[in-house]
Amino acid sequence: MKRIYEGKTKDVYELEDGTIQLKFKDDVTGEDGVFDPGANTVGLTIEGAGRAGLRMTEYFFGKLAEAGIPTHFLGADVDDQTMNVRKADVFGKGLEVICRYRAVGSFLRRYGAYAEEGQPLDAFVEVTIKDDERQDPPISKDALVELGILDADEYDTLKELTKQISGVVKDELAARGMELYDIKLEFGRDAETGEVLLIDEISGGNMRVYKNGEYIEPLQLEQLLFG
Amino acid sequence: MKRIYEGKTKDVYELEDGTIQLKFKDDVTGEDGVFDPGANTVGLTIEGAGRAGLRMTEYFFGKLAEAGIPTHFLGADVDDQTMNVRKADVFGKGLEVICRYRAVGSFLRRYGAYAEEGQPLDAFVEVTIKDDERQDPPISKDALVELGILDADEYDTLKELTKQISGVVKDELAARGMELYDIKLEFGRDAETGEVLLIDEISGGNMRVYKNGEYIEPLQLEQLLFG
Repeated sequence: MKRIYEGKTKDVYELEDGTIQLKFKDDVTGEDGVFDPGANTVGLTIEGAGRAGLRMTEYFFGKLAEAGIPTHFLGADVDDQTMNVRKADVFGKGLEVICRYRAVGSFLRRYGAYAEEGQPLDAFVEVTIKDDERQDPPISKDALVELGILDADEYDTLKELTKQISGVVKDELAARGMELYDIKLEFGRDAETGEVLLIDEISGGNMRVYKNGEYIEPLQLEQLLFG
Repeated sequence: MKRIYEGKTKDVYELEDGTIQLKFKDDVTGEDGVFDPGANTVGLTIEGAGRAGLRMTEYFFGKLAEAGIPTHFLGADVDDQTMNVRKADVFGKGLEVICRYRAVGSFLRRYGAYAEEGQPLDAFVEVTIKDDERQDPPISKDALVELGILDADEYDTLKELTKQISGVVKDELAARGMELYDIKLEFGRDAETGEVLLIDEISGGNMRVYKNGEYIEPLQLEQLLFG
C-alpha cells in the first residue's frame, strides 16, 4: 500500500490489488480557523470530522448503489476512517459539478441581475474547474469539449447522473424535514472501463442544507442524520 | 424622432415609422485616457472614431446581407454618423456573444490551466451577460434557459449565427493578410417577428485582429481596411 496523494481533507493510497483507499482526516477546509466547506485551504482540525463525513458518505453511496447509479464505492470502515474505491481518473485536473435547487452562493454572485436570493432553480447543473489560482472558474459544455477535458457524450452522462444523484440526496433530506439548496459532486472515468462514475465523497461539506429556514452546518447535519 | 437611450459610444433614437436610428459618437471606451474596447467606462473622445466605426459596420453588415444572415441593418449615412436599423429587443438586459479562434483575453484568464496563450480554438462560442457591477460574467446555455433570458432553440440559433458571422469577418480579414483572434457580437429579437437578429455594430472595438503577429488597434484596423 503506497500513498499516492495527500489531500486537504483526505489522503489517497493505492492497494496491492489496484483498488484505492481513501483515508478521511479530521482536517476541514476553512480560513482563519473558521470552517468553510468552499474554501481552498485547510482551516482547522475537528475531532470526529473525518468519521462523520465518512459515515454520511457510506450512507449515500449505499442509497446510490440501490438506485443503480455508478459510483467508485466498494466499501468503508467508519472506525478506521477509510473507504475503498475503484480506481478512477478525474477529468483534466478535476471538475466540480454543482446541482442547484435554490439561487444562493456563487450562482447568485454571478447572476444576481436575473435571480432573487433563494429563488427556486430546476435542478440546475453547472461545472467549475478546480483551479485555486483562478478561483475555480465556471466552464461550459462547449469549453470542456474544446479543451479536451471531456467529450460531449461524457458531459451529457455527467449532467444526467448529477440530477439523479442530487435527487436521491434531496429526497433523503426531505424525508427528514430538511431542504437541499445545492450540492457539489465529483466525477471520474473508471480506470478499467472508462465509465463515468461518481467519485470522492458525499458529506456535509459538499452541500448546503436548510431546516425551517435555518442553514445547517456540515457537522451539525451529520449529527442530525446519524445522531 | 425621440432619444430613447444614451449609450457610452452611441445614442439611440426612435423614428416616426417605428424604426431606430443609431448615432455613432466619437467617445470610445477606456480607462484613464487609454482606449480599451473591453472597458465599461468612456475613456476619451477621438475625432473620427464614430465615423470609422460606422464605415466598418456598414461594410460588414453589407457582407452579411449578401450571405443571407439576418441583422437589424437597414441603411447608414456615414457622414452623418447615423445608421438606421430594425427595432429589436435584447435578451434580458443584454448579452455579449464571443467567438474565439485563439485563446487570449478572458478565456485565457479563466482557462489558462488548460490552454496556452494564442492556442487555436475551433470557432469557440461563449456568452457573457452585460453587468458592469458583476464584471460581465460568463453564462452557460442551461443558465440562460433557467433564468428565462432566452430559450434553448434561440440559443442554438444565436450560436450558429455567431459562427457564420464570425466566419465572414474572419475571411474578409484573412483576404487582407490579417487574422481574427476573437470577436464580440450582440443579438436581439426582431420587435415585430421575434426572429433572432445580429444587432449593434461590427467595428474595430468588437474584435482582436493581428497582422504579422502584431496586434492591430481598432482605429488602425479601420484605417487599414478603408484608408
